[in-house]
Amino acid sequence: MPILNKDMTLCISLSARPSNNGTRFHNFLYEKLGLNWIYKAFAPTDLGNAIAGVRGLGIRGCAVSMPYKEDVIALVDRMDASASAIDSVNTIVNDSGVLTAYNTDYTAIAQLIERNAISPDSTVLLRGAGGMAKATAAAFRDAGFTKVTVVARNEETGRALADLYGFAWQAEPGDSTADVIVNVTPVGMAGGPDAAALSFPETAVAAAQVVFDVVALPAETPLIKAGRAAGKTVISGAEVATIQALEQFVLYTGITPSAEQVAAAEAFVREQ
Amino acid sequence: MPILNKDMTLCISLSARPSNNGTRFHNFLYEKLGLNWIYKAFAPTDLGNAIAGVRGLGIRGCAVSMPYKEDVIALVDRMDASASAIDSVNTIVNDSGVLTAYNTDYTAIAQLIERNAISPDSTVLLRGAGGMAKATAAAFRDAGFTKVTVVARNEETGRALADLYGFAWQAEPGDSTADVIVNVTPVGMAGGPDAAALSFPETAVAAAQVVFDVVALPAETPLIKAGRAAGKTVISGAEVATIQALEQFVLYTGITPSAEQVAAAEAFVREQ
Repeated sequence: MPILNKDMTLCISLSARPSNNGTRFHNFLYEKLGLNWIYKAFAPTDLGNAIAGVRGLGIRGCAVSMPYKEDVIALVDRMDASASAIDSVNTIVNDSGVLTAYNTDYTAIAQLIERNAISPDSTVLLRGAGGMAKATAAAFRDAGFTKVTVVARNEETGRALADLYGFAWQAEPGDSTADVIVNVTPVGMAGGPDAAALSFPETAVAAAQVVFDVVALPAETPLIKAGRAAGKTVISGAEVATIQALEQFVLYTGITPSAEQVAAAEAFVREQ
Repeated sequence: MPILNKDMTLCISLSARPSNNGTRFHNFLYEKLGLNWIYKAFAPTDLGNAIAGVRGLGIRGCAVSMPYKEDVIALVDRMDASASAIDSVNTIVNDSGVLTAYNTDYTAIAQLIERNAISPDSTVLLRGAGGMAKATAAAFRDAGFTKVTVVARNEETGRALADLYGFAWQAEPGDSTADVIVNVTPVGMAGGPDAAALSFPETAVAAAQVVFDVVALPAETPLIKAGRAAGKTVISGAEVATIQALEQFVLYTGITPSAEQVAAAEAFVREQ
């Protein structure tokens, strides 16, 4: 335990069920970089009062998780394109009382599409229809992809997401193949009911050039393992998580830690 | 620097110009007592939003300093007798969303009157007419004292304070003497324009049985030194400050640190 001081800048997170990851990640980097900052997760009792507190206490940054990502839109002053693209906020930056909302999940996926030089002419199978699927679909659309098929069992949400970005929809992967396959469902997630399951059929993995799993835990999901074994370009949810957390850190502090420092912070998060 | 965790209970202070004392005092005791708590001072941009934040973020305790001690009354749910006695708040406790306001300055002075077994029949000269003078006057009134004279150069505020509690008023100490003399002005305060001055004439010190200085810094003001040299019962502002801070700690945590732990925390505050 530290002895804190009055001048520390505070960043927080708001989530109904906070994990300890953000608190460990950010505080670790604050310490490594010699910043007089602290970070703490909160489970707010009331979102409006919590955001009022961000203003009234001069809290510099605020991560936003389930179930507040949409409700918080009405409470901020400005929407960055990353948040307005998907009507979903995961980050708020307080510049002298002006609250700007961002979505660094969207930013992270957009960066990974660019870094991996995936051609916008590629066909894409995108599995999932939740909030993160929306961020993923928007990032592909905004990168110029048009040949995208949303695969989601629930026709209503699946079709709605597909229609939003001018994509196709189908209920099941079936025999479909594409250049890029992207999983944005909980299939393959540690601790979930489908932790051991492959989120796409083996034929789809075999036919793909890029295998992208947004599931972050474990980093090596069954889909990522299969893609790696087949020699595909592989993009993991762990990469998404790292980039989005780093983006938040940079938005708050204006400082970009080294890749080594970020890796050490991630290792510290995993130590729990 | 520590690594914080998501489960830490937060207490804060609100002040236009926060000192580092509360942050050091409380965090020191949290560490010594093994409490998973943190404390940080804030200079709020807006009092209403800050108190909303106390509610929305589930902040457990909140010290209130200048200039918010009166304005905050409209924002809490309940007034403890210590705060309603003087219409001034220096402490808020959040019990599952219900905010109760206290004034531990009043409590501390009341405790010191009792501990020193000062008879309510005593005559009292009370110098000062500010917020702390009000807390002091109320504590004497509530302990049954009636023969109290408020000494304050400003007739308007001096008379108003005296009238509030049925006391007399006079502008200057002059040749007055009393069993108890109490200074609640900045005279004798370190760094102030009257740091070296005695807040009562030597004749008043000589005639008194009890010499009470509410100035906390230094602990040994000229008045306290004079009282000690003359063999009087002496009560210092440092004692008031210790008791009021300890009362806040107990209200927040429900735990009473030992006298030794409190002394160590105070030494840590002075180390700055």
